[in-house]
Amino acid sequence: MDKYVYMFEEGKAGMKDLLGGKGANLAEMTRIGLPVPPGFTVTTEACNKYYSGWENQLSPGLTEELFTCVRNLEKITDKTFGDIQNPLLVSVRSGAVISMPGMMDTILNLGLNDRSVTGLARSTGNERFAYDSYRRFIQMFGDVVCQIEKYKFEAILDLVKEKRGAEFDTDLTAEDLKEVAKRYKELYSREMKEEFPQDPNDQLLLAVGAVFRSWDNPRARAYRNINDIPHNLGTAVNVQSMVFGNLGDTSGTGVAFTRNPATGEKALFGEFLLNAQGEDVVAGIRTPKPIESMDEVFPDVHKQFRETAVLLEKHYRDMQDIEFTVERGKLYILQTRNGKRTAAAAVKVAVDLVNEGLITKEDALMRIPPGQLDQLLHPNFDVKELEKAQLLAQGLPASPGAATGAVYFTAEEAVKAAQAGTKVILVRQETSPEDIEGMNAAEGILTSRGGMTSHAAVVARGMGKCCVAGCGAIRVEENQKRFTVKGVTVSEGESISLDGSTGRVYSGSIPTTEPQLSGSFATLMEWADEIRELEVWTNADNPKDAATAVRFGAEGIGLCRTEHMFFEEDRIPAVREMILSRTTEQREKVLEKLLPMQKEDFKGIFKAMGEMPVTIRLLDPPLHEFLPREERDIKALAEDMDMSVGEINGLIKDMEEFNPMLGHRGCRLAITFPEIARMQTRAIIEAAIEVIKETGIRVNPEIMVPLIGNVSEFKYLKDLIVETADEIIRQSGTDLHYLTGTMIEVPRAAITADEVAKEAEFFSFGTNDLTQMTMGFSRDDAGKFLDEYKNKGIIDVDPFQRLDQIGVGKLVEMAVELGKKARPDIKLGICGEHGGEPSSIDFFHRVGLDYVSCSPFRVPIARLAAAQAAIVTRGRGC
Amino acid sequence: MDKYVYMFEEGKAGMKDLLGGKGANLAEMTRIGLPVPPGFTVTTEACNKYYSGWENQLSPGLTEELFTCVRNLEKITDKTFGDIQNPLLVSVRSGAVISMPGMMDTILNLGLNDRSVTGLARSTGNERFAYDSYRRFIQMFGDVVCQIEKYKFEAILDLVKEKRGAEFDTDLTAEDLKEVAKRYKELYSREMKEEFPQDPNDQLLLAVGAVFRSWDNPRARAYRNINDIPHNLGTAVNVQSMVFGNLGDTSGTGVAFTRNPATGEKALFGEFLLNAQGEDVVAGIRTPKPIESMDEVFPDVHKQFRETAVLLEKHYRDMQDIEFTVERGKLYILQTRNGKRTAAAAVKVAVDLVNEGLITKEDALMRIPPGQLDQLLHPNFDVKELEKAQLLAQGLPASPGAATGAVYFTAEEAVKAAQAGTKVILVRQETSPEDIEGMNAAEGILTSRGGMTSHAAVVARGMGKCCVAGCGAIRVEENQKRFTVKGVTVSEGESISLDGSTGRVYSGSIPTTEPQLSGSFATLMEWADEIRELEVWTNADNPKDAATAVRFGAEGIGLCRTEHMFFEEDRIPAVREMILSRTTEQREKVLEKLLPMQKEDFKGIFKAMGEMPVTIRLLDPPLHEFLPREERDIKALAEDMDMSVGEINGLIKDMEEFNPMLGHRGCRLAITFPEIARMQTRAIIEAAIEVIKETGIRVNPEIMVPLIGNVSEFKYLKDLIVETADEIIRQSGTDLHYLTGTMIEVPRAAITADEVAKEAEFFSFGTNDLTQMTMGFSRDDAGKFLDEYKNKGIIDVDPFQRLDQIGVGKLVEMAVELGKKARPDIKLGICGEHGGEPSSIDFFHRVGLDYVSCSPFRVPIARLAAAQAAIVTRGRGC
Repeated sequence: MDKYVYMFEEGKAGMKDLLGGKGANLAEMTRIGLPVPPGFTVTTEACNKYYSGWENQLSPGLTEELFTCVRNLEKITDKTFGDIQNPLLVSVRSGAVISMPGMMDTILNLGLNDRSVTGLARSTGNERFAYDSYRRFIQMFGDVVCQIEKYKFEAILDLVKEKRGAEFDTDLTAEDLKEVAKRYKELYSREMKEEFPQDPNDQLLLAVGAVFRSWDNPRARAYRNINDIPHNLGTAVNVQSMVFGNLGDTSGTGVAFTRNPATGEKALFGEFLLNAQGEDVVAGIRTPKPIESMDEVFPDVHKQFRETAVLLEKHYRDMQDIEFTVERGKLYILQTRNGKRTAAAAVKVAVDLVNEGLITKEDALMRIPPGQLDQLLHPNFDVKELEKAQLLAQGLPASPGAATGAVYFTAEEAVKAAQAGTKVILVRQETSPEDIEGMNAAEGILTSRGGMTSHAAVVARGMGKCCVAGCGAIRVEENQKRFTVKGVTVSEGESISLDGSTGRVYSGSIPTTEPQLSGSFATLMEWADEIRELEVWTNADNPKDAATAVRFGAEGIGLCRTEHMFFEEDRIPAVREMILSRTTEQREKVLEKLLPMQKEDFKGIFKAMGEMPVTIRLLDPPLHEFLPREERDIKALAEDMDMSVGEINGLIKDMEEFNPMLGHRGCRLAITFPEIARMQTRAIIEAAIEVIKETGIRVNPEIMVPLIGNVSEFKYLKDLIVETADEIIRQSGTDLHYLTGTMIEVPRAAITADEVAKEAEFFSFGTNDLTQMTMGFSRDDAGKFLDEYKNKGIIDVDPFQRLDQIGVGKLVEMAVELGKKARPDIKLGICGEHGGEPSSIDFFHRVGLDYVSCSPFRVPIARLAAAQAAIVTRGRGC
Repeated sequence: MDKYVYMFEEGKAGMKDLLGGKGANLAEMTRIGLPVPPGFTVTTEACNKYYSGWENQLSPGLTEELFTCVRNLEKITDKTFGDIQNPLLVSVRSGAVISMPGMMDTILNLGLNDRSVTGLARSTGNERFAYDSYRRFIQMFGDVVCQIEKYKFEAILDLVKEKRGAEFDTDLTAEDLKEVAKRYKELYSREMKEEFPQDPNDQLLLAVGAVFRSWDNPRARAYRNINDIPHNLGTAVNVQSMVFGNLGDTSGTGVAFTRNPATGEKALFGEFLLNAQGEDVVAGIRTPKPIESMDEVFPDVHKQFRETAVLLEKHYRDMQDIEFTVERGKLYILQTRNGKRTAAAAVKVAVDLVNEGLITKEDALMRIPPGQLDQLLHPNFDVKELEKAQLLAQGLPASPGAATGAVYFTAEEAVKAAQAGTKVILVRQETSPEDIEGMNAAEGILTSRGGMTSHAAVVARGMGKCCVAGCGAIRVEENQKRFTVKGVTVSEGESISLDGSTGRVYSGSIPTTEPQLSGSFATLMEWADEIRELEVWTNADNPKDAATAVRFGAEGIGLCRTEHMFFEEDRIPAVREMILSRTTEQREKVLEKLLPMQKEDFKGIFKAMGEMPVTIRLLDPPLHEFLPREERDIKALAEDMDMSVGEINGLIKDMEEFNPMLGHRGCRLAITFPEIARMQTRAIIEAAIEVIKETGIRVNPEIMVPLIGNVSEFKYLKDLIVETADEIIRQSGTDLHYLTGTMIEVPRAAITADEVAKEAEFFSFGTNDLTQMTMGFSRDDAGKFLDEYKNKGIIDVDPFQRLDQIGVGKLVEMAVELGKKARPDIKLGICGEHGGEPSSIDFFHRVGLDYVSCSPFRVPIARLAAAQAAIVTRGRGC
């Protein structure tokens, strides 16, 4: 027979999936003999059955098990449900596998009724306390189980207070509270058309069902969406006998961390409140005192608690967050869990625990969620200030960091304001190459359209600048110099704050804190490097980014996009002229102008990277992306090219595409305009030779062809590249080694990777495009339905953030296998956004890539994630 | 050692790949003892080596082989190269594996020089003839080998004629021609800075090289592009001793078909010219006489030729096209090949040959290129008239048939003109739903943008109406009511003609001929049905198309698109209102209006199809396709919906997408707006039940979900469909069987087909979208580079016309395999455009699909292609 309820004595820490985090820890503490108030846990499995198999009912089997456990609990506590002498009271709390603080419901003091309340008065010697507990229980039960609105209870309380001339709740006497309880019960029976349940057994069944239902409440669903927690885990329910910290001056309650959760410093860190319940601490009515102050009032209990804290940290081999209550001089541990901590604390604690001999290096590395390191690398909002800030909207976390400033709606005005010394946030529907200067002048960028690979996102990441993109909730009215969101209007010059790591937009200014890389951080990274097998390269388009990435530990450039160089203000006119050239000769002439500029770019990058490999991708985006949109620019171009505005507009219109993502771009450009590829090859090879001659550094360029679908495309361009390059090398008399390879980003390239590998010396997976084409999602448009998909449980996570291992991953695997078969020494990497995402990095490790490449600020994250992947694979950690 | 040259005696018909069509047949005729002038063939392999291995040179080995064969030829003919008495003269002709008439070069009379010309004069007793031959040879050689422009030769000839007062070439004497030859040689040495080569061995080597090069000339490349002939086949070169039909009244030349190539009638059909060479017949200077007239002048030779014709037809078991020459009373067969014929003749000949016991039914079926049947099903241009017509431009053959009419540039004016009795061609940049009436009123549609699945193409095919789409060369100026192409302007009211089967656009009116389905056609189709294993279904969106398809032999509907129904004038306002609804309630209200209309559509289709399966696809296109673009319509909609024009424009703008192909469409619509899918399910199921009740016909609906990438998408919608449908069926008390399945058109769906098949009862491959996503080509945009791809040899054929079996086909295979593993009885079909394309049908047969579905007019083609696929697989035919 299925078992759905476990006494704390029956469980242990390893049963977290079944008992939830809280339940498993209560069981574990019970098991190792700590003073835990006795109780039992209803499993997550029961919750899932409640939804799928039992039609939102508790099954008869579960009911029976519950009652058996209650009888058990009565025996252990020597108290009885509903007893008039010594009643058993319990708390009923949710407890999910992954903590979702405050999202689900809790009921305290269950077991109270008209009889047992007198028993409680008697056993505590405090009638006022008993009736206060009773009326609180009725309200909580009414709210959680029956959805009776809180204000109706509040109204009754206010009425009684007024009647008695009481200012505060504490002014009410036992008699007053008796009346409140009576009126509460009347409210209940009015609302529910039945009496408030007097049988504690009935109360319990109703409460368990209510906690199950709270798993599916809107705020819990929303929380899971935001935190990528699957909707099908379910919650456990913990039923535990009540202990009271508010029975006078020999009682109290507190919370403590075994180390400082902000800094990681090794010292008990917490708060304590005399004669109070846990909820009083949370409610903030009274100010708690530091944990040390316990020593004055209960030196023995304090000592016992400190020993318990050490024991728990040793037992769990991690920093603990412990809740406790002292009831009439006796210590009870109510909860322990691994303490939440800042990234800085996480790193320090992990390194310290290794040094203390508590955990291994592998354990330490496995302890840090790699994404958390982001906090250490970018400025961040002050956490305390953030809590007070008003959240305006949520967009995509397009480029991490925090920024605060006055909003401006055009690049021009942003630049002007910045020059005048104002900190600026540039707000646009979407950005275009013409906005580059404005983006550069701004502290951060906010767009209402476009995805994680939109122009704004890509350029901002390149600049290491905070960006929130695709924030669909805001409506940008550039003409009006304002944007609106949920009825709020923000006009030019008003301040907002952007958190590029979460995608959140706040109104007003929020102070930021600067990143500090502690010594522990360096130690941890060293350990990661010892263990990982994947190399970590970077995506960098300019010497500055390249240098940043090297500082963060990058071992090569996996993607240098050449198009961003084309967008620069002094080049874009030539680029446009090239695009609109009517003959090959005309185009070649303009390319001659661009050649020295590109060459200088590459020289700078080669110098920054030294002998590390530098993978340079040939021009990729559809050419119309470079064309002007503003009338002014069109006019300027017309003059430059000696054409009419009408002709230019005609040419621009001719180049428009229905689906630019699948249009004339990537290698298709190089095939229709081989002269562009020839110029770029020349720029790369000449730059490399000049750097060798100037510095003696043996640079290692790798020339990468984008958007191959067919080996014949690659072959055509490889022939062109090799012919051009080898001729230059021969003439220079230098010995330069270079590779020619391709991106794998079109599904057909993955499917036919064996053919492609016969020609290509390396593959670099472009998982952004590969995801778009394999799933048929336009990243820029998918926002319209992906949220709905998450809400309806159709997908768990955004496939552009985490690689879809089942679908897209299958193609990656196929390509790796086919590629290695055709060319055993083929070099394999990935340069899509997933290259900096931990679960994807784990996948890339498993399928046997040589390196991942990510933006400079994600390099440390990738190093750690790669180490974790290696540890998991070797079966040492986790 | 490699062998590159074969004497005719060494070859045979089966060596076509190596010897080319012409060479293989000359060898075969030699082998069976027919009077063929002796000669030899240089292989296609040599041609390919010339390009890839030998750096555009003849290798020493080939040169040696050539000379050996010449010596051999001298022995056989008892003539000698360059001989002053009895010189050997040869023709040098190209001969590809697949005939490319007139595209490559030929040189006649090779072997003439200053000495041997006197020998020719002597051996023929005709000095004038000898010098005429010599000067013609010099010109041909100068043109073909050295690219000396023809007009330079013509100028010399005119000069001499003027000098001698000669009106026609025939007025020139032997002396005159001697001078012409002399001056030709002088021209040659001026141009080439060397003397005209006197050594026939040199002449031969140069000529062979020139024929090799002519394989790669622009017009040959263009011809291969148009006819989908790979560029890497190469041509063979045939060197054959000359015979002369112009040596007086005992000589002559002719061409004959063994049956009538227009009708297929069994009777010798050809022409004959006394005292003439083959080129005179081609040049059209003299009018040839019917082949029967030979009987009067050479009764014996005529009899011999008739016997030879019968022999050749029996030998080749097909209608032959024979070229012959009579030299001084002796018959020579110069060429035989399977005769080109009209579709009608092809069908009749094939069926007759079976009845005559010459070939099997399978042979007959294999003989007809399925695509040719198109000619029999649509009106076509009169072939003779077509030859005289002026070709304006070439677009995509979007919907077959021929149409002629006056051009109009808006739907409104097209309708007006048609109502006034004018035959109209609607010309648009691209069509939109608002043009439907204009398209309906027109004889044919021409667009300058959009591909084979553009709105114009899809709707025209649905209407069975001729359409040329994506004709990029024309520039439509709707405002000016005209279009221009290559400097020609065609204004409103002027006539053009469209050939929707070839994509060609002609100026002026061209008479059309109506299709006639002969008895042979029906017989052939019966045989096809006996043999084929694939079922042939149709894509039909309305009862009329469904009925047409059934008449053509369709066995079900594989794709009924529901969106076209939405475009109808009386519905589109409601559709738009639905799309722009701000609440689910509002949307449901409008859907209630659409429900009865959709239901009536489905009832009509069910009635047309009887008990055959009808696969209905849920709404697929991005919703913004339905929104108005014209100001007038936007205004009307704003009034209908009680909103401002600004609000409507805002909503329309909000719905715009960067890449609509990968955007909010397909099942994504049904998931975000389940009420639409529910309405459509209701319409389908209620329609089916009503038809059952009204007629007793047990209809078989199959509900198809588009654009699935993840089984969870399908599961969500299947649950909704089944719940809705089963409830209706239950309430109706009827017994209705239906299936729920999905399209496989997103690569991820193919990759995870095992998961999808656990839920889906059928798969229908949507190879249009699957090709777009697998290759990363937007069909609407790819025109910009696919031509260049063909020219550069990067792809052979347009993957949207023929399935890319290596890439896209691999995914189809994977999905079939995975799908069958998960659900062995899964029903598998294909409803993309490839379902009507023969080579793709062959592939679908091989991978084990159950049916192909294509547009009604392609059903017979698919039946034949399916039969051929079955025959090939069984190894019986070919």
